[in-house]
Amino acid sequence: MKVDGRHYRSLWWDDDAGALRIIDQRWLPHDFRIAELRTLDDCTAAIRDMWVRGAPLIGATAAYAMALRMAEDPSDAALDLARDRLRATRPTAVNLRWALDRCRDALRPLPVRTRAEAALALAHEIADEDAEINRRIGEHGLALIREIASRKTPGEPVRLLTHCNAGWLATVDLGTATSPMYLAHDAGVPLHVWVDETRPRNQGALTSWELGSHGIRHSYVVDNAGGHLMQRGLVDMVIVGTDRTTRRGDVCNKIGTYLKALAARDNAVPFYVALPSPTIDWTVEDGLAEIPIEERAPRETTHVLGRTEAGGIEHVQVAPEGAEGGNPAFDVTPNHLVTGLITERGVCDASAEGLAALFPERAAAAGKTA
Amino acid sequence: MKVDGRHYRSLWWDDDAGALRIIDQRWLPHDFRIAELRTLDDCTAAIRDMWVRGAPLIGATAAYAMALRMAEDPSDAALDLARDRLRATRPTAVNLRWALDRCRDALRPLPVRTRAEAALALAHEIADEDAEINRRIGEHGLALIREIASRKTPGEPVRLLTHCNAGWLATVDLGTATSPMYLAHDAGVPLHVWVDETRPRNQGALTSWELGSHGIRHSYVVDNAGGHLMQRGLVDMVIVGTDRTTRRGDVCNKIGTYLKALAARDNAVPFYVALPSPTIDWTVEDGLAEIPIEERAPRETTHVLGRTEAGGIEHVQVAPEGAEGGNPAFDVTPNHLVTGLITERGVCDASAEGLAALFPERAAAAGKTA
Repeated sequence: MKVDGRHYRSLWWDDDAGALRIIDQRWLPHDFRIAELRTLDDCTAAIRDMWVRGAPLIGATAAYAMALRMAEDPSDAALDLARDRLRATRPTAVNLRWALDRCRDALRPLPVRTRAEAALALAHEIADEDAEINRRIGEHGLALIREIASRKTPGEPVRLLTHCNAGWLATVDLGTATSPMYLAHDAGVPLHVWVDETRPRNQGALTSWELGSHGIRHSYVVDNAGGHLMQRGLVDMVIVGTDRTTRRGDVCNKIGTYLKALAARDNAVPFYVALPSPTIDWTVEDGLAEIPIEERAPRETTHVLGRTEAGGIEHVQVAPEGAEGGNPAFDVTPNHLVTGLITERGVCDASAEGLAALFPERAAAAGKTA
Repeated sequence: MKVDGRHYRSLWWDDDAGALRIIDQRWLPHDFRIAELRTLDDCTAAIRDMWVRGAPLIGATAAYAMALRMAEDPSDAALDLARDRLRATRPTAVNLRWALDRCRDALRPLPVRTRAEAALALAHEIADEDAEINRRIGEHGLALIREIASRKTPGEPVRLLTHCNAGWLATVDLGTATSPMYLAHDAGVPLHVWVDETRPRNQGALTSWELGSHGIRHSYVVDNAGGHLMQRGLVDMVIVGTDRTTRRGDVCNKIGTYLKALAARDNAVPFYVALPSPTIDWTVEDGLAEIPIEERAPRETTHVLGRTEAGGIEHVQVAPEGAEGGNPAFDVTPNHLVTGLITERGVCDASAEGLAALFPERAAAAGKTA
């Protein structure tokens, strides 16, 4: 997507430097900085400390991290250890595990001397696939938006609400939840997006920055506002992303998603989840019972990143000195609150049957077809 | 309540200065500052700009504002104008209207020369009444907390969740939602309170500061966390305050309250609202249809107050430059989501019948007995 008129992906390979370049998202929306990752250590730090975030982007970054490690040491031991270390950086994003297993399974049978080149080719493939998957998600979501637009008077905007950043910054390009928005905007469908701030890390500011850069009308609202907006009939549709989706369609996404799903149901607002299929965890059925929730540092809740009056970018303390913070990073939205799942193969019910119908080969492989 | 071991109310009259003293809440929880209000203008600014906030405290402040004005000019015109100006400062808090009508109705029949003294006496009366009402709310709420505690193993804390600050800082003393907590803690019932941050103005930081000053264990959590905490069985009871309650028990409170009420229902967590009876608006039945929602400055959402690394207290920008903010300040929780109302006369159903049974004379006066 474009930043100041120039096209960027959220990560790209620099052949000359033999390094991965990323947009260092810690400084956004205040400052646009590019960082260079040269080693596995650079990459684990970047994922753990959220220089990059978003399930699909974490997966792609991990694939490049494997490539960087294979260039240094292509041994079996290095391969397995790299996978284990990367896997431990963020427990919730199933794409991370998916990308790592894919890399390991592809590289392990290869002769050691060919692994570096193969790993890099595979990382490129995973990144390109992600962009293509998101384009397809955008097309299927666009059809839903057009349907709403067709019931409005011409020129009246379709009002969407989204939580967190399931935008192009969370993926390689286009985003998941935002992809239908970009495609709709580019197709001339008028939109207005309510962007949840998404405390504690305010990823809504990233979404606002993205949408603003692309010229999409939106309002930055606190996480508390969405219920009221739906009560007053100001939201036509919710679209969010997901970090992990169970085979029956329970959705584990950024903390607070569940509250919006409850409000959507209470006000008969369609609640859609956009997801690339690598986000589906076929090994898990009951999200609430089976998915452990990542508890992050309390400082993320007691402090907020912002731009000071003097122009600096820093974390300011918002809670009282010494206050203890609790910081669960995700919650689970049960499938019965989800109107539909928007995947690269189409839209389906949030159910085991719905997902199995779109992805029969994977459901079968998981031994759990409906 | 105590601050550094010394007892304070959130406002008090300084006889020597002939002025009202308040805790200037704009700097809390980072800095404890006391301000002096000498004129009606001082008071309208303090209410409008939220040096003082919380429905009961706004009412008491307005009563003292009337007294300050009567000391300058006790004429009919000054009386009516003061009422109108104060009434316009915050549209939602029904206590404000209630206190102003009460002052005007009491003062208007009096000879002009006696109005200043009578106005001050009435302000004292309203302030003392508020403290006493809250003590009673605390006792009725304490009974509910004891009931939960009786089902736990001894020493296991009762886990409460609250939103915004319906604490002693929002009232003259004790608070409404917090009063049962203070009484329970003082009675030796172990508690743990989940304190919602309550964006955009982070009044949860005030609650955290209050509870911490009083030695009550609590965690400061983002507004997004409550649903997850309830899903995981970590909340025994929600207690919130209210800015206006309709005669059938719909509750207009800080934005985001409705989302917590939905989560409470979905997880069978009791959801109680603590309210002094002046917060009941007997003229309104359907909260969603009849209560206009105050839309505040977008800057409250795009910026956050915090302490910088250098120790300064300032508003830092969290949204991207130029982002448009939406800022509805309240939402309405329909009565069917409310387990019960905790009033100074006892606990009742959130219904016209429940309220009329506790306040028959007021329901009758409103011409709308059940």
